Amino acid sequence: MEGFLALQKMDCFYLSGTAQDALLFVSLDAKPLLMVKRELERARAESPLDQVVDLKSLREFPSLVAEHAGRLPGVLGLEMDVLPVRDYLRLQSLFPNSKFVDASGILRDLRKIKSPFEVSLMRRAGEIGKSVYLEAGKILREGMTEIEFGGLLEATAKRLGHEGLLRVRSFNYEAYSWHVLSGFAGGIVSQSDSPMGGLGLSPAFPVGAGRKVMKAHEPILVDFGICYHGYQADETRMFSIGKMPAKFVDAYKACREIHDAVLADARPGADCEALFLKTLELAKGLGYEQSYLGPPGLQTKFIAHGIGLELNEYPFLAQGQSYPLEQGMTFAVEPKIVFPGEGSVGIENTVLVTREGCEILTPIGTEIMEV
Amino acid sequence: MEGFLALQKMDCFYLSGTAQDALLFVSLDAKPLLMVKRELERARAESPLDQVVDLKSLREFPSLVAEHAGRLPGVLGLEMDVLPVRDYLRLQSLFPNSKFVDASGILRDLRKIKSPFEVSLMRRAGEIGKSVYLEAGKILREGMTEIEFGGLLEATAKRLGHEGLLRVRSFNYEAYSWHVLSGFAGGIVSQSDSPMGGLGLSPAFPVGAGRKVMKAHEPILVDFGICYHGYQADETRMFSIGKMPAKFVDAYKACREIHDAVLADARPGADCEALFLKTLELAKGLGYEQSYLGPPGLQTKFIAHGIGLELNEYPFLAQGQSYPLEQGMTFAVEPKIVFPGEGSVGIENTVLVTREGCEILTPIGTEIMEV
Repeated sequence: MEGFLALQKMDCFYLSGTAQDALLFVSLDAKPLLMVKRELERARAESPLDQVVDLKSLREFPSLVAEHAGRLPGVLGLEMDVLPVRDYLRLQSLFPNSKFVDASGILRDLRKIKSPFEVSLMRRAGEIGKSVYLEAGKILREGMTEIEFGGLLEATAKRLGHEGLLRVRSFNYEAYSWHVLSGFAGGIVSQSDSPMGGLGLSPAFPVGAGRKVMKAHEPILVDFGICYHGYQADETRMFSIGKMPAKFVDAYKACREIHDAVLADARPGADCEALFLKTLELAKGLGYEQSYLGPPGLQTKFIAHGIGLELNEYPFLAQGQSYPLEQGMTFAVEPKIVFPGEGSVGIENTVLVTREGCEILTPIGTEIMEV
Repeated sequence: MEGFLALQKMDCFYLSGTAQDALLFVSLDAKPLLMVKRELERARAESPLDQVVDLKSLREFPSLVAEHAGRLPGVLGLEMDVLPVRDYLRLQSLFPNSKFVDASGILRDLRKIKSPFEVSLMRRAGEIGKSVYLEAGKILREGMTEIEFGGLLEATAKRLGHEGLLRVRSFNYEAYSWHVLSGFAGGIVSQSDSPMGGLGLSPAFPVGAGRKVMKAHEPILVDFGICYHGYQADETRMFSIGKMPAKFVDAYKACREIHDAVLADARPGADCEALFLKTLELAKGLGYEQSYLGPPGLQTKFIAHGIGLELNEYPFLAQGQSYPLEQGMTFAVEPKIVFPGEGSVGIENTVLVTREGCEILTPIGTEIMEV
């Protein structure tokens, strides 16, 4: 590859420091070139790069690149996992002599190890989350709908610095932050690759909090993430109005046990698939083989997902993902147990892989929050 | 085209009634076939289609199609405006003898005329918006940050049925619902194709409400949309704490005048570009040539965008968009005036093109809401 073109917003932000509408060209021959569609002066103020120029039309792009790098790249890397076909065909017509290759793997590999600066932003996101969960206990009351509670939690989070969207690197998978699933709604699966999806608000938005009224003595699962300066921390905790039935208390205890076991083994060199497979054994031993990570037949195949600027970064502690953890990786580990028709429980924390183990970035108490 | 494959979530929802994770194959030879990745039973419950089957892997897809339609399509339409390259190359390997063409224009054309059912959902979204704006006056107070106000407005909207995300058909343009821009923040442009973008919360989220504290006597522009059962209504109104300076009151009056002029001319047959160009003349006549639709050099080139399941549907009342309005189209018309360093004003309503004119779907009072 002689050049790489970043078009996706978060790749561009990661490499340039700005999320203005821009394309970043990185080449072997010259400094990175940020070509800005809108807004140039803001991009110049935000980016530490010194080559930040105006791009009026994509047509200008080849001449800008040739002038800057001295030649057009013979082989140009693109983010083919997300770049739309129409843009790709346009680029082919603009660079008729270049060969295009998929460079998204390189970017995702780069981004999987977090710098101390990135970790500091995720830690701050975790602190915001802690404050929100503390306030949540004061907001929750019987008779409130899931979506009313979720909306107020989100308003609280935004007041404290949450940026609203949890970005996902995907064509169809949307950022959606507040999952408040109570009672039977927690046992409902939806389109997402998640143990439970909830009712949502309509067939057009079939995920997360719904219009269901929250009642006493049912498990209320709150799964949300906080985004601070683009960086996310994801967490799940359990609430109840009055006590929840022993069945759910016991299952939640099992989730915590599995969570703790993953963290006890998480260190540089540990195999991601092995960490996942071990939790299957644990869940089986605890009597939850049929309800672990989803209802029978719909169980998901991961126990943790990497997290940073996006909610689906490397690593995945999942089936088929056999590679070692590395120092500086961050992931959200989320054992969950689902009883169709009844409800679900779970816990989730975002952690950093350190030199010898891991550190929790979402330091919220793990007891069931009973109001 | 002998077949069309819908993969994009809203196209799939529009044609099938479900937003579960699925692919819809439409052919000349057979009934539509909905192939569901997750979750099959939910898709079956939601969709009126009778051919709803399980899709375990994309590999199965050609055989499912061949079995269903009797043959593989020679020419297959895809949504090339949004489909990622990697999926496209995968489809090429699965259908080595098919030719692919871009069918996104057909879908967008289909979707631009709303049925009475679709309009009824947008009307309901408009009613929710009206209730939110009524409550907004009770929430706003001096010393609140833009994001605190925005968060509480969103919580109110969600409690009343708002689904949270305003979807956009785009690779990089994100759904972001609450724009609260006060004083100088209203004069700041960002990456979006909008007259003003505001501060946002960080370089990673540089659009919309920020941490700026709202003060008395400055213009506070609130631009947001409501989404109900997937359908959106978009609207903008002005607020102030105490009176705002005459300069902004006058500019807002000009925006209302331009808004009313567009609506007076909007009927089937009216040319979309001509409607836009006429507003440029009007703005010039009113003395706002340099500040209409953005600061000098950054002025946008549209006065209205089509709206429905997404925020950027046809029609666009914009430069270069010379085609007639048609009965059943819905669009959001939004004249805005921007003074860099000082603030901005504007009004926005979502309207339906009727047989002889148009109807406002966002029936909120147009006076400045002074608290």
